[in-house]
This record gives sequence, C-alpha cells and structure tokens, in this order.
Amino acid sequence: MSGSDTKASLAARVLAGEARAIARAISLIEDEDPSSADLVRQIFAKTGRAYLVGVTGPPGAGKSTLVSALIAELRTTGRAVAVIAVDPSSPITGGALLGDRVRMQAYAGDRDVFIRSMASRGHAGGLAATSATAAAVLDAAGFRTIFLETVGTGQSEVEVAAAADTTVVLEAPEMGDEVQAIKAGLLEVADIVVVNKADRPGAQRTASQLRAMLTAAAPRDVPDDRPRPKRPEVLLATASTGHGVAELLAAIDRRASGTAEIGVTSAATAARLARARAQVWAIVLERLRERLGDDRHAAEASDLFRAVADHQLDPYAAADRLVDRLAREELDAEIGRLPR
Amino acid sequence: MSGSDTKASLAARVLAGEARAIARAISLIEDEDPSSADLVRQIFAKTGRAYLVGVTGPPGAGKSTLVSALIAELRTTGRAVAVIAVDPSSPITGGALLGDRVRMQAYAGDRDVFIRSMASRGHAGGLAATSATAAAVLDAAGFRTIFLETVGTGQSEVEVAAAADTTVVLEAPEMGDEVQAIKAGLLEVADIVVVNKADRPGAQRTASQLRAMLTAAAPRDVPDDRPRPKRPEVLLATASTGHGVAELLAAIDRRASGTAEIGVTSAATAARLARARAQVWAIVLERLRERLGDDRHAAEASDLFRAVADHQLDPYAAADRLVDRLAREELDAEIGRLPR
Repeated sequence: MSGSDTKASLAARVLAGEARAIARAISLIEDEDPSSADLVRQIFAKTGRAYLVGVTGPPGAGKSTLVSALIAELRTTGRAVAVIAVDPSSPITGGALLGDRVRMQAYAGDRDVFIRSMASRGHAGGLAATSATAAAVLDAAGFRTIFLETVGTGQSEVEVAAAADTTVVLEAPEMGDEVQAIKAGLLEVADIVVVNKADRPGAQRTASQLRAMLTAAAPRDVPDDRPRPKRPEVLLATASTGHGVAELLAAIDRRASGTAEIGVTSAATAARLARARAQVWAIVLERLRERLGDDRHAAEASDLFRAVADHQLDPYAAADRLVDRLAREELDAEIGRLPR
Repeated sequence: MSGSDTKASLAARVLAGEARAIARAISLIEDEDPSSADLVRQIFAKTGRAYLVGVTGPPGAGKSTLVSALIAELRTTGRAVAVIAVDPSSPITGGALLGDRVRMQAYAGDRDVFIRSMASRGHAGGLAATSATAAAVLDAAGFRTIFLETVGTGQSEVEVAAAADTTVVLEAPEMGDEVQAIKAGLLEVADIVVVNKADRPGAQRTASQLRAMLTAAAPRDVPDDRPRPKRPEVLLATASTGHGVAELLAAIDRRASGTAEIGVTSAATAARLARARAQVWAIVLERLRERLGDDRHAAEASDLFRAVADHQLDPYAAADRLVDRLAREELDAEIGRLPR
C-alpha cells in the first residue's frame, strides 16, 4: 500500500482505470484538497475523449430511473459508462440515497460502470467547475460516456448539466404549477427533451405542447460563430420499462458523432469552451481566496467583513481594500524578486 | 423627470421609500449595472434596521401561499413588508409567475407592501450576494421585515434563505422520495420548521418525525464563539386558510427581538457576517473579472480558455497565468505612479 498512496501513482492508477483510485481522485477534487491540482496536471493530457451528457429535470421526473435505463442499454453492447449524480441532499444529514439510485448498486461489481454521488453544496469554486474536473478524471480513466445527473431546480445544478456536451432535459406529464415554471426554465438548456412516463395519460399531449413551445420560442442567444441546432428534439420514453431508451441513446450518439444536425459540433465546442472557462475561473478565485485567507491577510479581511456587517463600511469599499491588498502583496513579492 | 433620473436623486428617492425608485434600484443591482455601486454607497449608512426572514422548502410545499398569508397577517397590524422571491423560472422564457404569486398582486396598490421576483440565474457574483444587496435597498427604504423566498432545491437558492437573520423551512406531509431527500438537506439551515397543509392526513405525524429527527441530529457545525439554538422549532400551519400563521409570525418576531432563546442574537450576528462576506467576495470577484476582461487581457484569457478546452493546457496552469497577469498589471500600474 505504501508506494500506491503517492500522488504519482494515484494518477497512474487513475489512468489504468482502477475504480478505487478514481473514487479517491474525485474525493480529493470534491474536498478541494491541494494535491488535486497536481493530480489534474498529471492526467490532463489524457482527457478530451469522453462525451459528457447532462441529464436534468424537475424533482420527480424520473432522472435516476432514466440514467439506470441508459446504463443498462449501454451495457448490452459492452460500452463502459460513468455517472456523476449531483445530490441535493447533504453530506451532514447522511446524504440519503435517492430511491432509484439504490438500483444503480446493481452494477457495484461491474468495473465498466462507475457511479458517484456528489453533494451539491459547499463547492467554493462552483459546482459546475468541480463536477467538470471530476468528469476529467473519469475521462482520463477511459470512460467514453459520462452522465452528469442533477435536479434542475437550482442555478448551480442546471449549470452542471448545461456544461455537458449534450443536455437531456427530462419532463413528466401532469406536474404542479411550480414544477411547470421550472420546466419552462429548463427548456432553454435542452438539446434533447424526453417526456418520461410516456405510458401515463397526457404524455403525448405534453410532447405536442413542448414541440409547439419550442417551435414558438425565439432562437437561443448564442454567438453568431457558434450555431446551435434550431430546436431540441422531443422524445417519449418510459424509463421504468426501458421503452424509448434505445432511441434516446441513439439520439445522444448521433450528437456525439456530430452527424445529427448542422451546428451540433460547433455547439459541442462551445460547451467545452464554457466548461474550460468555468474551471479556470474557479481555480483563479480559489487561488485569490487562498492568498487573502493566509495569515497575513485573514485578520484584515475578517475586520472588513465585520465592518460591513455592522454597516460602518459599504461592501464596495471593503472589496476595493481587499483588491488593493492583493495587488500590494504582489508588488511586494515582485520587489522581493528584484536584484539587489 | 429630468433631475429625478440622476443617481443622487435615485438614492434619495429610495430613502424616501418611493416604490418606483426601489424597483429601479433593484433592477440596477440585478443587472450588475456599474452605477449600482454608487447607489449602494449612498444608501448603505441607512441600512441595518431590517430583519431578513428566509423562506424556503421543496417545490409544492406552499411557500408563496405562506408568504402571502404572512403579508396579510403583518398588514392587519399596519406593518410594512417587502418580499424578494427568487424564481427558478427564467427571464428568457418569460419568467412565468407562479400560481400563488398572482395573489400577491392583491397588494399592488399598497405602498407598504413591496414584492419583487428575481431570476435565479445569471448572477455572476452569486445569487446570495445579489439578493442581499437588493435587501439592503429595501432596508434603506424603511422596510423592517423582508422575506427572501426561494425554492430550496439548489445550492445557490438555499444559500439565499440561509443568509437571512432567520430561516423558515417549509415542509408538507407526504411527498415523493426525491423531495424527502431535499427536505433532509434543508433542515440543516432551518431556524423554524413549518409543516404546511396541516389539515392533511399525516401532518401531525410529519411534525413528530421532524421533531424526532431534529432531536437526534448532531449539533450544527458552527464556530464555538457563535452559539446557535440547539434545534429549530417545529410549527404546524395551513397557509391557504391562515391557520397557524399568527403563531409563525410571533415565532419570527421573538427571534427578531432576540428573546426567543439564548444564542439567537449571536446566530443573527453570524448571519449578518456571512451575508457581508458573500457580498464583499462577490464584488471582489466582479472587479477582478472586469480587470481581466478588459481589452488588454480579454484576448489572452480567451486563448487560455481555448487551450484548456483543446486539452493543450491544464486548467491550473491557465489559472496561474491569469493570476500572474493580474499581478503584473498591478505592478505596471504601481510603477506608472512612481515619481520619475
């Protein structure tokens, strides 16, 4: 065990596809452990071959069941698959496994299936950045299909799925008012819309309504040089029976191979660029936080926060002082490096 | 209209409690308009008297209805009240009003009631910071009770409510598996738990289960110098009929006056400090983004993001270059200021 615990060999073990090493690497990233930077550096050259599929939808739409069905479908042809499920429940209260996720444990002994839950809270650098970095580990480990599953009701959670190469939005017929509003918001990020529970009354009507809505909707606000397909596909499925799942996987695969529609490849490139931007920004922010949070500055920062809380200093003035402090530190460092 | 459109008078009009000026000020903050910094500076000294009440819960628990009932209760004794409702639906698709929110329009002519929906997406500095700044405007305008209403299923959305002085978590009896998991996560941030729809079968049992869960739960992870009440109160209410709403308001008021339990005042102070920290950090980040996003750096940053997207550069190396670039700019500026 001794040598295998070193960082170098952790990267090597990840690249070899070892499940425990992958799990450990993702934990380091999730915990924002300083060693995760080295790890990512070591594996990064081996990334870029995976296709990331975001799966999101309102609570109760059946996301976990659908992802389970997609895993089963992929396994029938021997394809490996990894899942990062962003769980709205918390690690403190025990991170209760959602009902359907228990089913995924059926693949516990299958080394070509890797399933990981991540808590949605406590990622200083942003949930989208953390999950993209975790996906990079799975990518380096050789998984070619990676699902990012989130509940599509929060800003951060939607960003995770929207940062994937293709985003599948799940809907179910007949849900409450609040859920309807959530659905409307989610359609913007959809590449593929799946009306789940297609065996229920109203499913066909829901699909027709969605197609009408999507036809009426204004073209999405994307830069001119990055065309996206005009509107997402709307498919019907019943995840619990597997009905329509093969068709969904085929639609995903068409997008992955870039043959589905004109512009898909460019859209995928845009998603990769957005993911890279989110990751880099999260690290920049983390670096700056570290600098301001170290012994020299922590007390000053704390005093500034307290002054704002006491309404003695406005937050903009406090921010200016922190930015100045950061600049001054850099200046001191530069002067220290000057020849004397 | 001419003079009244200047920034100085916008601040004055906010301080005078003028509804249109308040709405305009919150829009500037929501749009991250550069003039919002000046505005906040001008009103900040007048803030600090409002009590912020977060209201959150899973979709369908009845948050909007409960907030409507609380408004009605406050108005019976002539108290003014403001609401910021963070809406999971999107501005692009029209920001569909949730069913119950329509009812709030009943107060459209009442200048002591201010209700504002904010989209949950697109806040670069973070949703919690934006809503805290918007609350500061309402505070300066003289509102002493401000509700921050969010759907408690996303990381950012929960942070909004949790940053309030007191957080009310709404639960409803008998919801699905996924919602149960969300409930468990939400209990951590609760000061007051309300079991809504108390007229439904199972409400009493839900309340008993919650009390048992909260008794069993480990004490919350807070610094030693900031004690919090050992466990939240659990109340029953039926928002749609108003049953239990007066008792809920009394519980909120006890916390506001700091007499409810030992430690509440310290907890409220901790919330204010957390809010200040979030606001200042959001502004620091925004300032840094501006600096890196200006003409001199935008092309370089864009090249770095593309290199990461193309897997030619790892995100940590890209972040280092951006941080160095920032430091170099500061150094150049300092050198420019040196006497020659």
